[in-house]
Amino acid sequence: MNANKIPDIIIGRLPVYLRALQRMADSGLKTTSSQELGELVGVSAAQIRKDISQFGEFGKQGTGYAIVYLIEKLRGILKVDKIWDVALIGAGDMGHALAHYQGFANRGFRVVMVFDNDKSKIGKNVGEFTIEDTAHLVERIKPAGIKTAMLTVPATAAQSVADQLIQAGVKAILNYAPISINVPNNVKVQYIDPSIHLQRMTFYL
Amino acid sequence: MNANKIPDIIIGRLPVYLRALQRMADSGLKTTSSQELGELVGVSAAQIRKDISQFGEFGKQGTGYAIVYLIEKLRGILKVDKIWDVALIGAGDMGHALAHYQGFANRGFRVVMVFDNDKSKIGKNVGEFTIEDTAHLVERIKPAGIKTAMLTVPATAAQSVADQLIQAGVKAILNYAPISINVPNNVKVQYIDPSIHLQRMTFYL
Repeated sequence: MNANKIPDIIIGRLPVYLRALQRMADSGLKTTSSQELGELVGVSAAQIRKDISQFGEFGKQGTGYAIVYLIEKLRGILKVDKIWDVALIGAGDMGHALAHYQGFANRGFRVVMVFDNDKSKIGKNVGEFTIEDTAHLVERIKPAGIKTAMLTVPATAAQSVADQLIQAGVKAILNYAPISINVPNNVKVQYIDPSIHLQRMTFYL
Repeated sequence: MNANKIPDIIIGRLPVYLRALQRMADSGLKTTSSQELGELVGVSAAQIRKDISQFGEFGKQGTGYAIVYLIEKLRGILKVDKIWDVALIGAGDMGHALAHYQGFANRGFRVVMVFDNDKSKIGKNVGEFTIEDTAHLVERIKPAGIKTAMLTVPATAAQSVADQLIQAGVKAILNYAPISINVPNNVKVQYIDPSIHLQRMTFYL
């Protein structure tokens, strides 16, 4: 398997399959079919079989997929069979929501540090974390070997904080700031901007 | 222009172009080029010209795009030249962050109602809103003609709340609940799940 040969759009669907499979496992199911999984996630059965077969033969004609086995395989492929430490930069409303977010547990991530540059916030607690000064970001993140970060700073600060994160060795940034950021080719960025997502739907209304 | 003929992936990029153009306009710029815009958003100049030309001839060879004019056109195409009222269901941490979110202003949306089914929250304030009982969702949303909603409820509640939203006439749902929801063909759903977005990056690390 060569990561560069698998289209991004397929990689993009795997976490959705994994999430649905984990819910099936939680509800006690043992096996599933591409039809059943497809109905849950809104993808055709043929597409699911094609996507999953990129990585090996994980299902059997007639009996379908063993859920726990497929979960294990997908977690391996997506490298979330380990826990990634995540640095959170920006302790505003969205930062607070993410620091408290229960949806990282069992999905491969945990927030381990929270930063802000606002002197009135530094030293205060958000959930179990003490807010640290963004000025110390590189010296804190680099030795900890943290590779993933979430950015919930204002648009005007996003690029300079991203530059610091990259200097600190971060390779994956989930950017909540409403602005595109420039990163080297070996750094990945995903964007979450509710206005963008809403605008992608109003076109069709 | 037939909405069904424009690929979703192009529609998906337009809000990103619009956001970058609005930032350019805010900083006082009058004109831009596909090269300049492309560098800001991480898309090739050729792709930008191709995407925008799907909707008409908005730029001129040599002088590029008049920013305010292109903003006006893109806002019209995406139908955010009006303000969409948005219902927010789920007044947890994420719901609170979205109720306070400043990033909807000038981008076509405003939250107008907040619902929760937790008796201890109903009647309390979040920002300028009084939290209403989800039980009254249909009777409140339908007469108000609200077409867009954000769902920040637990996964277990997401489908039943989505069904109520659809019954109330909502046509576009931004789903923060970590589960896929089933909707009729005439209803659009976009998903925001930070774990999914993070997992789309760890594959490459």
